[in-house]
Amino acid sequence: MRDFNYYAPTEVVFGRESEEQVARLVKKYGGTKVLLHYGGQSAVRSGLLDKIARLLSEGGVEYVTLGGVVPNPRLSLVHEGIALCRREGVDFILAVGGGSVIDSGKAIAMGVANPDEEVWNYYLQQATLTRALPVASVLTIPAAGSEMSGNTVITNEDGNFKLGFGGPALRPKFAIMNPERTMTLPPYQTAAGVTDMMLHIFERYFTKDDDMELTTALAEATLRTIKTAVFDVLKNPNDYRQRAQIMWAGSVAHWGLLGMGQQEDWATHQLEHELSAMFDVTHGAGLAAIWPSWARYTMQENLRRFVRFAVNVMDVDNDFTQPEQTALKGIEAMERFYRAIGMPTNIRELIGRDITDDEIDEMARKCSHDGKRSPGGLKALTRDDMVAIYRMARG
Amino acid sequence: MRDFNYYAPTEVVFGRESEEQVARLVKKYGGTKVLLHYGGQSAVRSGLLDKIARLLSEGGVEYVTLGGVVPNPRLSLVHEGIALCRREGVDFILAVGGGSVIDSGKAIAMGVANPDEEVWNYYLQQATLTRALPVASVLTIPAAGSEMSGNTVITNEDGNFKLGFGGPALRPKFAIMNPERTMTLPPYQTAAGVTDMMLHIFERYFTKDDDMELTTALAEATLRTIKTAVFDVLKNPNDYRQRAQIMWAGSVAHWGLLGMGQQEDWATHQLEHELSAMFDVTHGAGLAAIWPSWARYTMQENLRRFVRFAVNVMDVDNDFTQPEQTALKGIEAMERFYRAIGMPTNIRELIGRDITDDEIDEMARKCSHDGKRSPGGLKALTRDDMVAIYRMARG
Repeated sequence: MRDFNYYAPTEVVFGRESEEQVARLVKKYGGTKVLLHYGGQSAVRSGLLDKIARLLSEGGVEYVTLGGVVPNPRLSLVHEGIALCRREGVDFILAVGGGSVIDSGKAIAMGVANPDEEVWNYYLQQATLTRALPVASVLTIPAAGSEMSGNTVITNEDGNFKLGFGGPALRPKFAIMNPERTMTLPPYQTAAGVTDMMLHIFERYFTKDDDMELTTALAEATLRTIKTAVFDVLKNPNDYRQRAQIMWAGSVAHWGLLGMGQQEDWATHQLEHELSAMFDVTHGAGLAAIWPSWARYTMQENLRRFVRFAVNVMDVDNDFTQPEQTALKGIEAMERFYRAIGMPTNIRELIGRDITDDEIDEMARKCSHDGKRSPGGLKALTRDDMVAIYRMARG
Repeated sequence: MRDFNYYAPTEVVFGRESEEQVARLVKKYGGTKVLLHYGGQSAVRSGLLDKIARLLSEGGVEYVTLGGVVPNPRLSLVHEGIALCRREGVDFILAVGGGSVIDSGKAIAMGVANPDEEVWNYYLQQATLTRALPVASVLTIPAAGSEMSGNTVITNEDGNFKLGFGGPALRPKFAIMNPERTMTLPPYQTAAGVTDMMLHIFERYFTKDDDMELTTALAEATLRTIKTAVFDVLKNPNDYRQRAQIMWAGSVAHWGLLGMGQQEDWATHQLEHELSAMFDVTHGAGLAAIWPSWARYTMQENLRRFVRFAVNVMDVDNDFTQPEQTALKGIEAMERFYRAIGMPTNIRELIGRDITDDEIDEMARKCSHDGKRSPGGLKALTRDDMVAIYRMARG
């Protein structure tokens, strides 16, 4: 069993009235002037942004606002935010939204605290992070897990590079989670979010290190809970109980617990980042389009793990005489699940047309850093592997 | 579903070489002079205490030592520790041992940081805790979960009062966990520890709030993992993989995750505290002696929960026509489990003689604070309820 470090210090306030505590929490973690960071108009229309701003003011906390974060958040807005925070003397980043807004906020937090470093250099692994402004969130879209993780993913429009970075300095101080805020999510966003959080578990679950039973059992329990809850919320978007399961599961999936003691994989995320960068698709949908092909391509690396997944998560009958068939039935069951929640299972369904060989070659080139990088813990993918998987996934 | 707060900031370093990091971690969390707190001779004999002392010295951290913590740790030693720390200018408490040592260390941490308050007053709920010295541990006995929880239980020998107290200021800064250190635990201690950690889950799992599926599913996964691992380590004490499952499960069980979104119970712990205070028995063994009777007495409060436990944790076939029979079979299966790992299932087996009516009345009097307190979330137990459960449990 692998040694591990576990550290998840984010304070979570979860429930219907949780937003009321925002000013107290900002002050508790040292904030005096906040950047209220958000995305599109939904936070404005819903009244949430106004409510948070009012609560901060009433609590004696100053703030400035910066909206406009888009899915696959952009480096240009990060630079704008860094300049704004320096100008205004902001000492705390409060993201109101989902993973994109939090990831953008983390990038701003790095940039403000390190004025002598171009923030993109952290993503390029060309700089070492030792400090960042404190970050926290009022979560409205459960999926990315960024509200408790130390990770951020940013897209540099100059070349369509989408890169991730992580470190303990980026662990958010607190997360306010009110499941009611997720009830207005469109079905596609709900389904894409669920896909994303399940993939965060898959990236840890599919490993050669299958000797860490507790981590594995907790992962399976979380996956089964998500799998059941999503159909209830697609049927009844106002199902508080099941919205709450999904919201909390999104955090559990990604704060680290479900990967302890084993090597992680993350190749599917890398493959999807190129899809998002090239076609600006929803991250969760991109993952659904890639994962079944990744799974078929890599399952021989640890077949019994895919058998276990089929039986324990996807309720496939175990044919003990034919483990490969059982494993494949698990992947097929996952594809049926994706279709049932309105997600694609290949790239054609994702982007609405056939992907070209040139596009595949370009994605594989970038994903492999011109052949210099082989992501993937279960199977380290060469550039040729990537081409093969993208082709399997073209549909 | 109930609102909840989640906060578990303890940094865990888990694995064979984890102790090597002790000086770095103490300094990271601000320690310059450490109280090295420990129990009996096993920490000395094993060489662990010397190793930690040497690592601290080499890392430039001063220390003083205080041993002698006993199971059901005593207030008198806490007072001694507080005086020692004040005299020596200690600013960090490092417990080397199990739950008793950590709990004693937490009490000392409260006392040193609050010189104007008698530390026992916190346990009596007659004082409010706002600060404590930082506490951390090198864990050698997985069971109590104190290494990541904000709780402490201390016995005041003056009247045999055993009381618990908790608060965020007591959350340990870090926990060093090396499963190899648990390999020398005698079978009885291993079994009692497993019983304790399972009870930490039971106290949260048996609730009327059975609408928090994720918490429930995670709890069941943890219980099943423990239940399997314990037989392997009783058979082969040096089974690193399964020792690691148990060690990590002990933390997962008690840091808070497995209670989120639901009311907790904790009556069995209260009933056992009186047994420990009166007969100085091992806490885990006392829990095993009480729980089956508590379960039979309270199961009608939420019968479907006990049915679920029987089926999902104890592998009882669900007789859908007779839920009460299914629930009882789950409790019986748990009793068989206790016997199989060498734990008692009633008070006679625990203390080696019949308990008297007077002793039962005295325990119920103290547990109920002379009838003024009714602990228990699933069923609030009156003094009469306590008498009834102790009598059911006499064996």
